Amino acid sequence: MKDVTLKEIAKKLGISITTVSKALKNYPDVSEKTKAAVNELCQKLHYTPNSFAVNLRTKESKTIGLIIPEVMHHFFSNIINAIIDEAEKKGYLVIILQSNESLELEKNQIELLINKRVDGILLSLSKESNNDAHIQEVINRKIPLVMFDRIAKLSNCSKVIIDDQKAAFDAVQHLIDKGCKKIAHFRGPLNPQISIDRYIGYKKALEKNNITFDSKLIYTCEDITFQEGIDYARLMIEEHPDVDGIFAITDLVAVGAMSYFNEVKIKVPEQIKIIGFSNWFMSQVVTPKLSTVEQPSTEMGLAAFALLLEEMNCHRDNLPFTPRTVVLPTELLVREST
Amino acid sequence: MKDVTLKEIAKKLGISITTVSKALKNYPDVSEKTKAAVNELCQKLHYTPNSFAVNLRTKESKTIGLIIPEVMHHFFSNIINAIIDEAEKKGYLVIILQSNESLELEKNQIELLINKRVDGILLSLSKESNNDAHIQEVINRKIPLVMFDRIAKLSNCSKVIIDDQKAAFDAVQHLIDKGCKKIAHFRGPLNPQISIDRYIGYKKALEKNNITFDSKLIYTCEDITFQEGIDYARLMIEEHPDVDGIFAITDLVAVGAMSYFNEVKIKVPEQIKIIGFSNWFMSQVVTPKLSTVEQPSTEMGLAAFALLLEEMNCHRDNLPFTPRTVVLPTELLVREST
Repeated sequence: MKDVTLKEIAKKLGISITTVSKALKNYPDVSEKTKAAVNELCQKLHYTPNSFAVNLRTKESKTIGLIIPEVMHHFFSNIINAIIDEAEKKGYLVIILQSNESLELEKNQIELLINKRVDGILLSLSKESNNDAHIQEVINRKIPLVMFDRIAKLSNCSKVIIDDQKAAFDAVQHLIDKGCKKIAHFRGPLNPQISIDRYIGYKKALEKNNITFDSKLIYTCEDITFQEGIDYARLMIEEHPDVDGIFAITDLVAVGAMSYFNEVKIKVPEQIKIIGFSNWFMSQVVTPKLSTVEQPSTEMGLAAFALLLEEMNCHRDNLPFTPRTVVLPTELLVREST
Repeated sequence: MKDVTLKEIAKKLGISITTVSKALKNYPDVSEKTKAAVNELCQKLHYTPNSFAVNLRTKESKTIGLIIPEVMHHFFSNIINAIIDEAEKKGYLVIILQSNESLELEKNQIELLINKRVDGILLSLSKESNNDAHIQEVINRKIPLVMFDRIAKLSNCSKVIIDDQKAAFDAVQHLIDKGCKKIAHFRGPLNPQISIDRYIGYKKALEKNNITFDSKLIYTCEDITFQEGIDYARLMIEEHPDVDGIFAITDLVAVGAMSYFNEVKIKVPEQIKIIGFSNWFMSQVVTPKLSTVEQPSTEMGLAAFALLLEEMNCHRDNLPFTPRTVVLPTELLVREST
């Protein structure tokens, strides 16, 4: 469809383009009668201001980019939810991309967003990414950037995180308080900071309680899936039938392990206690209900967008902005599995 | 940050703007040496072609809009997943908005996307929406539009759906085949077509098997939540303790009902058989595992985007396009709850 232009509107009404433009912006020096005529005709002909031309003038696209590792993840869907609702309220649209945990894809997506001239970027890193060149490129170009959850500690940008070490420490301390003596950890892959921090929290809790750390009790879930929960539970029971507690990197893995124990009639929590992480919805509907760590996903989305908005406003007004890190509190949710 | 312009690049190299522009587009009449110099300097100064100016020239934004009722819904996250991956492969970015089941919000979002000049819109209606004026506006403006899952039958646009009536019929027939004589239906709200069609499928299955329809066995879940599943299961047991089968509008409601039965020691499937709809992930991890209807979410996302792409290409090339409706097959998944 050919777009209607201001010129055509002006011609049809026998007035100047400037008058049409002023009428649409409700300038006081245009008569109410002319304004009414212009508005009526614009509506009739489906006139829309050309947003590309508006963008060229204002240099703002009123669009932000959001890159997350995966949409199908309970925690991230919650965050998307919070961000798109809040962004819309503040007049921003959100382009969402998922890296599928690939550094290569993430790099391309950063480039796409830069070329698209988004006003800012919200980023949760893929498990392969760190403080790499593509992140530096965003920072060098002074494009407002906030990392959340999966961050690179060394990147010079704002960050929103939880204290993963402390949260993991609390979860393992809870298992110990409930009487567990031999606790396995189903950890995440080696690179992401959250995976490292939860592992450190696990070790610290053992240390504090004078339980010797045993690297054989660490099972690494490369893809953090339900199936890995099942498989490592089976392997663990073969290798260490006397394990009496498991701390899992996330609820999905914990629920996988529980599903295996259920199948082979190993009783949770009587024989093995399990605690997950993130409070996925499913953790309330499984039998027994899963103890977990509540991660404030909505709050994380809101905090990340608020920081980005602050930086975008400074950027627009040529004001200085110093990146900040916001640490959100977590909460231990004790349910039936412990 | 001030953007680097072609003019500045030209000045620094002592050549014309036209030569810089041609060098970047790899025109044959510019020497390799000049091209190399231009590319090197552009890289050094972080030059990016101004996408707004490019958009103004090509009239394409290479962006599409996607409006869904809610992100936090297993089925819709799956669809988002499929659409953003496929769109990216074809060179499109996706702006995602959620209507939160509100007609008012959906209207505003359609307007935002029109003003943003997206090349096309993918839409799954809110439960309050139908073939309303905002849909007509998109169609009148000839903006490529595809509805999926939650559609308005009367809208003159492409659609991707499943045969909800047949899928519901099959689910209820399955309960009857398993010996159920008195089957309740936890239905969705009155307006959305999927809710109407599943209800009709339920009635048709009863009719085919000479079971008298009883409107008292219909419980309407206005918000289609886990809690409604719990509440209506409780109410139903009070009112009709002899019900021996439930067909629920979606797995979330079915899992809510099961959680209530679990609490009050009513045995599923021995005393009551339950079947859900959509095959949410949680239906495999609850005890007993929930029978359900598999809805092809990834295929639906891919089919919707493919139709939109076809229409956008026709639109760009001024070719005619006739809207089509694609009906995807469903599959009955028999598990432990029946």
